[in-house]
Amino acid sequence: MNNLILASASPRRKELLELAGFDFEIITADVDEVLDASLTPSQLVMSLAFQKASAVAAEHKQSTVIGADTVVVLDGKVLGKPHGNTEAKAMLTELSGRTHEVYTGVCLIKGDKMHQFFECTKVSFYPLESELIDSYVASGECNDKAGAYGIQGKGCVLVKGIEGDYFNVVGFPVARFCREIKAFA
Amino acid sequence: MNNLILASASPRRKELLELAGFDFEIITADVDEVLDASLTPSQLVMSLAFQKASAVAAEHKQSTVIGADTVVVLDGKVLGKPHGNTEAKAMLTELSGRTHEVYTGVCLIKGDKMHQFFECTKVSFYPLESELIDSYVASGECNDKAGAYGIQGKGCVLVKGIEGDYFNVVGFPVARFCREIKAFA
Repeated sequence: MNNLILASASPRRKELLELAGFDFEIITADVDEVLDASLTPSQLVMSLAFQKASAVAAEHKQSTVIGADTVVVLDGKVLGKPHGNTEAKAMLTELSGRTHEVYTGVCLIKGDKMHQFFECTKVSFYPLESELIDSYVASGECNDKAGAYGIQGKGCVLVKGIEGDYFNVVGFPVARFCREIKAFA
Repeated sequence: MNNLILASASPRRKELLELAGFDFEIITADVDEVLDASLTPSQLVMSLAFQKASAVAAEHKQSTVIGADTVVVLDGKVLGKPHGNTEAKAMLTELSGRTHEVYTGVCLIKGDKMHQFFECTKVSFYPLESELIDSYVASGECNDKAGAYGIQGKGCVLVKGIEGDYFNVVGFPVARFCREIKAFA
């Protein structure tokens, strides 16, 4: 395989790719994310993954570029990253005691070749007391996370169970990726 | 709550309890684990968790002692930790392309009070090529893990999906634990 580029600044995606034994570099581009409200969640994450990957691929035509994007969806409504503690509390209150979906889209681009896929994982939260929400938000972990929680951090205590790939919830479906890139390369 | 003791040497259990914000010390006792073949998997892990906790609790009657044990079960057969690479390969070959269960039993003891519970998570493996099994076993990650894999390590690439609590597979159902100890204390 030629050199591999991860077009994402997420430390969690970097860690998962390293764990799976990939050798890669990280190059990101500023993307004005275009959100088309008519897209389904799976189309949305693949579209955002494509936007991130293609911006980098345009400058690195010999490399295989990986883009990825993750969103949280409750009752068909997309929850992005919260803007401040008030919105974080509101999101966690909405998620409390319920099951939501986490979608991650992945896009691979090399020159003229392109491949996209997505994974969806269901996540069920315990009913959350307001003191738990307050202390979790105060920890500062919510800020850069879709849906205002990180399952791999202190957010582990919020989650009753999941159905699907855990690492997809963390932000990158690494096991599926290993198989998809083998078919792509 | 009085002081808390984790009666387990597992670095993963220590990490999860710390993540959940508990303040505790680690004290383990040598236990000759008694495996009663007539027990179901859930009874087995709770029995082993009790053996570990009670051995420590006998010497620390003022503390709340936590014992835990995790096993992997395929077709009703318990898979423990592999003895060497040959057994590790055999276990992973058995698990390949199939769904197994991971049981973790937890026991809390304080003086005369005792409380036990367990969690069960279903784990589905991708079909594993023999080269992948060989390279995973060569990584050395199998050795101290029930079922010969660690989902939180390089083993992340083996798993297609799960149903239930991810951290239960890692070795400690930390979210459930937070709720159970609140009721116990």
